Amino acid sequence: MWYTNDFPSQNAIIEALNRIKSFIHRTPIFTSESLNQAVAGNLFFKCENLQKTGSFKFRGASNAVLSLSQNEASRGVATHSSGNHAQALSLAAKLRGVTAHIVMPENAAKPKIAAVKQYGGIITFCEPNLESREKVLREVMLKTGACEIHPYNDYRTICGQATAAKELIEDSGVTLDVIIAPVGGGGLVSGTALASRYFSPETIVVAAEPEKANDAYLSFRAKSIFPAIPKPDTIADGLLTSLGTLTFPIIIKHVSEVVTVSEQEIIEAMKLIWERLKLIVEPSAAVPFAAVLKNKIDVKGKNVGIILSGGNPDLYKIPWIV
Amino acid sequence: MWYTNDFPSQNAIIEALNRIKSFIHRTPIFTSESLNQAVAGNLFFKCENLQKTGSFKFRGASNAVLSLSQNEASRGVATHSSGNHAQALSLAAKLRGVTAHIVMPENAAKPKIAAVKQYGGIITFCEPNLESREKVLREVMLKTGACEIHPYNDYRTICGQATAAKELIEDSGVTLDVIIAPVGGGGLVSGTALASRYFSPETIVVAAEPEKANDAYLSFRAKSIFPAIPKPDTIADGLLTSLGTLTFPIIIKHVSEVVTVSEQEIIEAMKLIWERLKLIVEPSAAVPFAAVLKNKIDVKGKNVGIILSGGNPDLYKIPWIV
Repeated sequence: MWYTNDFPSQNAIIEALNRIKSFIHRTPIFTSESLNQAVAGNLFFKCENLQKTGSFKFRGASNAVLSLSQNEASRGVATHSSGNHAQALSLAAKLRGVTAHIVMPENAAKPKIAAVKQYGGIITFCEPNLESREKVLREVMLKTGACEIHPYNDYRTICGQATAAKELIEDSGVTLDVIIAPVGGGGLVSGTALASRYFSPETIVVAAEPEKANDAYLSFRAKSIFPAIPKPDTIADGLLTSLGTLTFPIIIKHVSEVVTVSEQEIIEAMKLIWERLKLIVEPSAAVPFAAVLKNKIDVKGKNVGIILSGGNPDLYKIPWIV
Repeated sequence: MWYTNDFPSQNAIIEALNRIKSFIHRTPIFTSESLNQAVAGNLFFKCENLQKTGSFKFRGASNAVLSLSQNEASRGVATHSSGNHAQALSLAAKLRGVTAHIVMPENAAKPKIAAVKQYGGIITFCEPNLESREKVLREVMLKTGACEIHPYNDYRTICGQATAAKELIEDSGVTLDVIIAPVGGGGLVSGTALASRYFSPETIVVAAEPEKANDAYLSFRAKSIFPAIPKPDTIADGLLTSLGTLTFPIIIKHVSEVVTVSEQEIIEAMKLIWERLKLIVEPSAAVPFAAVLKNKIDVKGKNVGIILSGGNPDLYKIPWIV
């Protein structure tokens, strides 16, 4: 067997939620009659844009940080990230009273740098390429003894992300026919797939991805991990990485389908979420709803869970304003 | 006495909420640790941007439409409005199965026209001035026998708007020291003031208004209704009208203070609400929080209710993007 089947257990996800539940928000589920009519289905939007730090990433980061022994935690945690995981890990570490070392490319957006600092993260800058990020991260870990918390390729992270779907299943008040999550590195969708398998086996899970960064789609088809598309030209900047060695096997086994959407479809879906749900979501978070809106998934008459993964867009670059 | 003191009773507001509660959303209250820290107070945001049709106006319109006798209602309802009241009355009428006649200026924004049509309102266009609006409305009413539902100067409307503060008082879980609402024609803030008097007498009510459309501020000072500022240069386009003969006396008697904020202060507050609460609000809805943020009201250590009045901004004109 070329990959492990020793996935996190049902109990690991239950324990994750118990571990983090006093630290996270149990985010609400939003519904909209007009959007339901538009797609002829019942949509249940799980609002992880309203999660602490503005994304689901706080669940995985919290579970990982809280899973560490006191001895491990005392040396701090570390990651390289210029996105939502950086903020999430910074706050998770702060709430445990330990240090988060964040390696960020020197050209990272100023608001992202400010957000990490606001949550108490200690930033080390690197060159804007993967080699430098990994090299500088290793140096930081060697120097500090900090423990790496990977944004997706870590079962503690995956079990944390799984808690969003667990809550969605418990709180929607219906049996969901399908849950759709965006896919980048696969932490959220693999966690969602495990949660569905364990807590609502009749619910299928679909991953949604930008066409312009369709490495998960290609990987799913080929049953082999494709590298990330180089310099993908997509506004869904949270979905650029390739699948991980731990997330991919879960996805192959428990995700039904990977669907892709165009940039225009993402923009239209994002605008509709802002307009009708009155919720700020970032482009990556609009990808699953774009797939529903454009009939990439059949939702007619179905109960459909959609994970709104994050709410940290660049408010100076509104994609429908040219 | 130059005005009536025969204000709507406590019971009128209780009845209003009972009348409309199966039609409206009991909107949530949002809180934010980072915004609380920023102002050193505890803020409770009542999310009327999440109300049906995207604003509190649906409360007043529903209460008015549902208060009509079957005979009155059967001839339809009418108003002139190019804003949130137009959509609110259209949906309220639709839910009672009667016709809403909406007089709109011919230069009204296309999305506003589309929204009224979507909710089933019948539009009659007029010239873009108050004389034409009132003249065409009278013609429509004469022709159809429809009953006018005024956007604010009607006790049925005021009692409907009062239900937002009643819910806020019941759901916040604390004794509020102050509730702040925006003021245009005064329907929301007069209702809020009555709700506070009846259901939480220890809570004071403050009205917040754009400096550039400060007729309520001037009226409050002079104890006499000032006309609306002509062509006011403010982005808070829901707050342009003058106070009404029914709303003004309630405000004089039960509102503690009218404070004003600049355009820059409104923009900053609106952006912060989008960023931190992840909620879409329109400029008018950001006016009360602007007053808090800029210390126009002392909130240190206090429990502060803020009514986010609406969530229908023009998504093509983001005021902080030049």
